[in-house]
Amino acid sequence: MNQSYKQNQVISYYMCDRNQQLTLSMLVNLLMEVSENHSAGLGREESFMRERGISWIILRYEFNITRMPTYKEEVEIETFATEYNKLFTYREFIVKDKNNRQLIQVKATFALMNNATRKMNRISSEVVEPYGAEFSKRIRRSTKPQDVNSNQAEEKGYTVRYFDIDANQHVNNSKYIEWLLDSLSPAFLSAHEIQHGIITFDKEVKEGDTVKSIVSKRIKDELYSDHRIAVEGTIHASATFKWIEKSGMGLNDGNDQ
Amino acid sequence: MNQSYKQNQVISYYMCDRNQQLTLSMLVNLLMEVSENHSAGLGREESFMRERGISWIILRYEFNITRMPTYKEEVEIETFATEYNKLFTYREFIVKDKNNRQLIQVKATFALMNNATRKMNRISSEVVEPYGAEFSKRIRRSTKPQDVNSNQAEEKGYTVRYFDIDANQHVNNSKYIEWLLDSLSPAFLSAHEIQHGIITFDKEVKEGDTVKSIVSKRIKDELYSDHRIAVEGTIHASATFKWIEKSGMGLNDGNDQ
Repeated sequence: MNQSYKQNQVISYYMCDRNQQLTLSMLVNLLMEVSENHSAGLGREESFMRERGISWIILRYEFNITRMPTYKEEVEIETFATEYNKLFTYREFIVKDKNNRQLIQVKATFALMNNATRKMNRISSEVVEPYGAEFSKRIRRSTKPQDVNSNQAEEKGYTVRYFDIDANQHVNNSKYIEWLLDSLSPAFLSAHEIQHGIITFDKEVKEGDTVKSIVSKRIKDELYSDHRIAVEGTIHASATFKWIEKSGMGLNDGNDQ
Repeated sequence: MNQSYKQNQVISYYMCDRNQQLTLSMLVNLLMEVSENHSAGLGREESFMRERGISWIILRYEFNITRMPTYKEEVEIETFATEYNKLFTYREFIVKDKNNRQLIQVKATFALMNNATRKMNRISSEVVEPYGAEFSKRIRRSTKPQDVNSNQAEEKGYTVRYFDIDANQHVNNSKYIEWLLDSLSPAFLSAHEIQHGIITFDKEVKEGDTVKSIVSKRIKDELYSDHRIAVEGTIHASATFKWIEKSGMGLNDGNDQ
């Protein structure tokens, strides 16, 4: 049976942007924490994996965001593994407010990395059995981020910092998200919020790397931004976000009452 | 009577560096959260302050670190206001492990900022009365960070990012700490840990600023690093850290058992 896990979380000041809304990179950090707590409860914590020389890596996120939680708000984060095949496992996260309304849904695709070779491992039933997810022979085909339009692209450069590297000895996924979004202007980011997003992680970024974060916008009924993270011309991550204009004041103010 | 406040905190993966130890910048984020919860319990939460057009700013931290907590460790963070005068309030934090051993002691100096003028306000008894700290006419003289030795200094440049700015509309203090430490080499940071540190925040860093993080090392019985954060030649923050060599392997491994 599919094992679900829930955890409450109060949104701290340090998790928020200048508008006191949870940032996308901190959302991902919180999801990873809930995911690890879920695994630990099933005896599949990070140290279990490490002893076997393997670790989970994230290949893809898909976000559906109704509203980002705000400073001091308490939310419930639920997660469950939905399906796995020989290469990937699929996990879902649901974030709800205190009135049980869904704020965010996230789908994540994981793979197993061999820590020594840093290549992908086959997924053994020993590792995934406790989660109760269904095995499927079929490997899902999922929507990819759209290509950047290089005629209208803008880019910013970033140097990997000491604290960007996590215990997996490569840049933490949440840092890619900061680079992805920081390529957009403050004026744009202040006036818009993400309604939907797909991020794919294609290649590790390592110490000493210099990263380019490239973005172009397009309007196709709705407003989109398409992104690439590149190191020396090689794509390391891609993303497409769908944006809506912020509904003016009230969004945060309403929640402070 | 002096009102103390305690809160337990489990150290998450995203709070840790590559060695699975809590980072100094995340420590500061956690302290600020505990501080705000303390204030909220006394009816002096951030919104109380905002309604009066004022907010707390940090002018100085002093850290005494016996051991940084590690991933998944549960610690207790206690805080209390110790003293105030017409310009400053002084607060202390004690971080303890589950065996009640003190891991970290932090002293912090706060001032009140007028949000409109962004200048310092006199501290009214209305604001500080509930904390039960003692009033003292005397303004404390505290040790300052030592000057950088410009003959042996190294520097790195940083551009302020969108997500560096917090709801106070200036760069969050924890980001200064990332800049301060990132000026040291990965080899040095991996092999050493901070035993003592003083950071002073002299001037706000704002959107669009380009920051230089300047560092020099010196040995005077012990190993020290002296730091400056400068924007166009003006000092915005200073720090001095005292370092010890990491006691080899075992530090983290011991805690994973």
